[in-house]
Amino acid sequence: MTPPQRSQDRELAALLAPDILALLEESPGDIAAETEELHPKDLADVAEMLPREKLGEFLRVLDPARAADVVEYLDDELRIELLEEMSPAQAAALVSEMTPDERADVLEELESETADEILHDLPAEARQETERLLQYETDSAGGLMTTEFVSVAQDLMVPDALAQVRTAARSGHKEAMHAIYVVDERGALVGVLSLRELVAAPDDARVADIAWTEVVKVPATADRAEVARVTSEYDLVAVPVVDGFERIIGVITVDDVIDAIVEEQTEDAQKQGAVQPLEVPYFQAGFWNVARKRVGWLVFLFIGEMFTGTAMRHYEDTLAAVLTLTVFIPLIISSGGNSGSQSATLITRALAVGDVDTSDVWRILARELGQGLVLGACLGLLGFGRALLWGTEANVAAVVSLTLVGVVVVGAVVGAMLPLGFQRLNVDPAIASSPFVASLVDVTGLVVYFSLARALLGIA
Amino acid sequence: MTPPQRSQDRELAALLAPDILALLEESPGDIAAETEELHPKDLADVAEMLPREKLGEFLRVLDPARAADVVEYLDDELRIELLEEMSPAQAAALVSEMTPDERADVLEELESETADEILHDLPAEARQETERLLQYETDSAGGLMTTEFVSVAQDLMVPDALAQVRTAARSGHKEAMHAIYVVDERGALVGVLSLRELVAAPDDARVADIAWTEVVKVPATADRAEVARVTSEYDLVAVPVVDGFERIIGVITVDDVIDAIVEEQTEDAQKQGAVQPLEVPYFQAGFWNVARKRVGWLVFLFIGEMFTGTAMRHYEDTLAAVLTLTVFIPLIISSGGNSGSQSATLITRALAVGDVDTSDVWRILARELGQGLVLGACLGLLGFGRALLWGTEANVAAVVSLTLVGVVVVGAVVGAMLPLGFQRLNVDPAIASSPFVASLVDVTGLVVYFSLARALLGIA
Repeated sequence: MTPPQRSQDRELAALLAPDILALLEESPGDIAAETEELHPKDLADVAEMLPREKLGEFLRVLDPARAADVVEYLDDELRIELLEEMSPAQAAALVSEMTPDERADVLEELESETADEILHDLPAEARQETERLLQYETDSAGGLMTTEFVSVAQDLMVPDALAQVRTAARSGHKEAMHAIYVVDERGALVGVLSLRELVAAPDDARVADIAWTEVVKVPATADRAEVARVTSEYDLVAVPVVDGFERIIGVITVDDVIDAIVEEQTEDAQKQGAVQPLEVPYFQAGFWNVARKRVGWLVFLFIGEMFTGTAMRHYEDTLAAVLTLTVFIPLIISSGGNSGSQSATLITRALAVGDVDTSDVWRILARELGQGLVLGACLGLLGFGRALLWGTEANVAAVVSLTLVGVVVVGAVVGAMLPLGFQRLNVDPAIASSPFVASLVDVTGLVVYFSLARALLGIA
Repeated sequence: MTPPQRSQDRELAALLAPDILALLEESPGDIAAETEELHPKDLADVAEMLPREKLGEFLRVLDPARAADVVEYLDDELRIELLEEMSPAQAAALVSEMTPDERADVLEELESETADEILHDLPAEARQETERLLQYETDSAGGLMTTEFVSVAQDLMVPDALAQVRTAARSGHKEAMHAIYVVDERGALVGVLSLRELVAAPDDARVADIAWTEVVKVPATADRAEVARVTSEYDLVAVPVVDGFERIIGVITVDDVIDAIVEEQTEDAQKQGAVQPLEVPYFQAGFWNVARKRVGWLVFLFIGEMFTGTAMRHYEDTLAAVLTLTVFIPLIISSGGNSGSQSATLITRALAVGDVDTSDVWRILARELGQGLVLGACLGLLGFGRALLWGTEANVAAVVSLTLVGVVVVGAVVGAMLPLGFQRLNVDPAIASSPFVASLVDVTGLVVYFSLARALLGIA
């Protein structure tokens, strides 16, 4: 992905920061008014550019709701610091202004005791709401949802419903106004309509008449990948979350879905690079933390690779007999690894986006076998020519080029089957990383190579 | 990403398909009414399950707008087939019901002459609108935007604006109603407010009084990665697109942004696996097409890897002298490749999500050097132990373990610097794939290995 020009919006912040600083000295009272038109995200960028010790002061001059918005957009690290240096009461006052889901997310980042103190200082209703949200897995629909949404009874008339919505809107609901949910007397979700549709509806219609009754929804336990899939397949701006009795208990807004998608992709990318997911930005992850996330895989792969040593030792006399064989070892094993990496990537991604599933295993096997043969033939030919140019005897060159065909096929097949296997075992296929596949293929490659050598070169 | 349970929503479709089929025989007139509550996506799933020859008939019994919705959600391949077998007039009638951006996307998929014929049969206004959209790069803001959006003059009073919006909504605007854009007499974008804010606003307010004047927008030329970044950073449901004169010319809705994000990430994943992006689902990409997308990188990497052969030949006598050295070659080069793959993945992803940029190069270099040393030390120790257990002489074991430290450091540094380098050159850093990094590190690894061997084992 061609990277974001962060500079671009920083410019605005860099421009404003000095003025804000000056205002903090001279007339702090004016800051709120001066900045009211700014998107909280931009204001957060400004806040991050202020001297650290000025930050608290800056937030205090904003009105509480606005300050909460800004804190939501602050860099995670900074937000955590900030809340932990506040008194629980101050922190509670601040987070109580956030949307319920943001509040829960923020508290989740904190040391559990700090979070508990803050929770304890929240108004009863907000506390219960937040505690309820905190019960859900962070990566589940329940963990992503907000409890702020608008629902109307199915038998209301359009003008009454509209009036009710306007009241709700005025009462400072921040989120999930894109869809209005229609419930029956039990609170079960029976319909949905967009605010647009309500606004456009004739005054003499009942809500039930204009609502869509086939509502796309997810259970609170659905995982974020499922939420992402539903949202993008149905082009939703908000997904209702229901409990076991089909009662609507929350709504996931598309902005949170996008964040979930990006996090999910980052984790997949890291798994595919044989790194345990960092879960925080590169520089925010401590040095030793990163090392820990890397060493596990490295050691695991290293131990796997040790079998190449075992294989080599086993064929040492073959090597002794025809030393030139060694010359081609890196070339051969890397070629297997590369075709394996290609297949693993294609299949893992196809699984992630739902283009294929485990039931396609035979089709995939057939196709990757074919790919391996075609690609292997190309490399085999190249390898044969190169070997001859190096003055290698034709029979050795032949062994090399046949081996290349073999390893590329093995690579393609192993690379494709491994993710499908993990999938079948309900393990995230993304862990079938290029290095993982390569290490599996390397040993095979050597065995193929030396067996062919013995057979075709007539070595004991 | 734990993969989608496609089965789930197929169930519904599988349930309905037979009934629809029966209705097509007996009373086709009832189908529209029977299915009106279904999300078009579900109806598209049903359509895909009907016998191919029934599909056209099925679409004809739906009302045109509905049929267009269904076609939008059909599998790409199928939609292309369908439109190409229709008469241009029929196809034009169908696509004229789509939102402008969908219409442009659909026509883009077709053979250009087929698309031209259909364009020619569109109503003048729709044709011009579509031709305008087709001028933009598919992956640019202009290519993603729809020209259907609601804007109001800044000096309208709230009730008048609301009335205007209601009319627009009733006139069948499908999209981009989440935000209402405020323009001055020149059509320049001067403000934005959500439908919710308008609905909640006091009747005696002017639109200009309640609108946000700091509007987040993108130029029509912005690329999709930039659009994605802005949307997720500012939590938008719609991004206005402006021309060179700050006039609003379109709006990108969040559902299209999500699609763009997922496509972008698929391309990145494939680049990172050393495959040229397929651009279509795995099975939709023809066998030879896929082979072509793979062979380029494989051959390129193969040629790069040939230098390992050159290196090996250069050190052949060293090998002859101490044959056991060969035993460790695969272990050594793979370890370098693995640490390189880890660093490349971490940095590439960090660049993609904006956690780091090229200005961080020194910080990253320092950190990766450190990581390399720590991780290399672990593997070096393991390698030393293993070598001794294999009965390798201590001095050879020492060479192996020192080499391991060296290659892991080289891997980490090369893996981290390569994406940054590409970034600096405005090349997508995602092409710094694991195999690419590995092939760079392999040669270095061998040179380090043999130089150390010569030095420490006193071989000529």
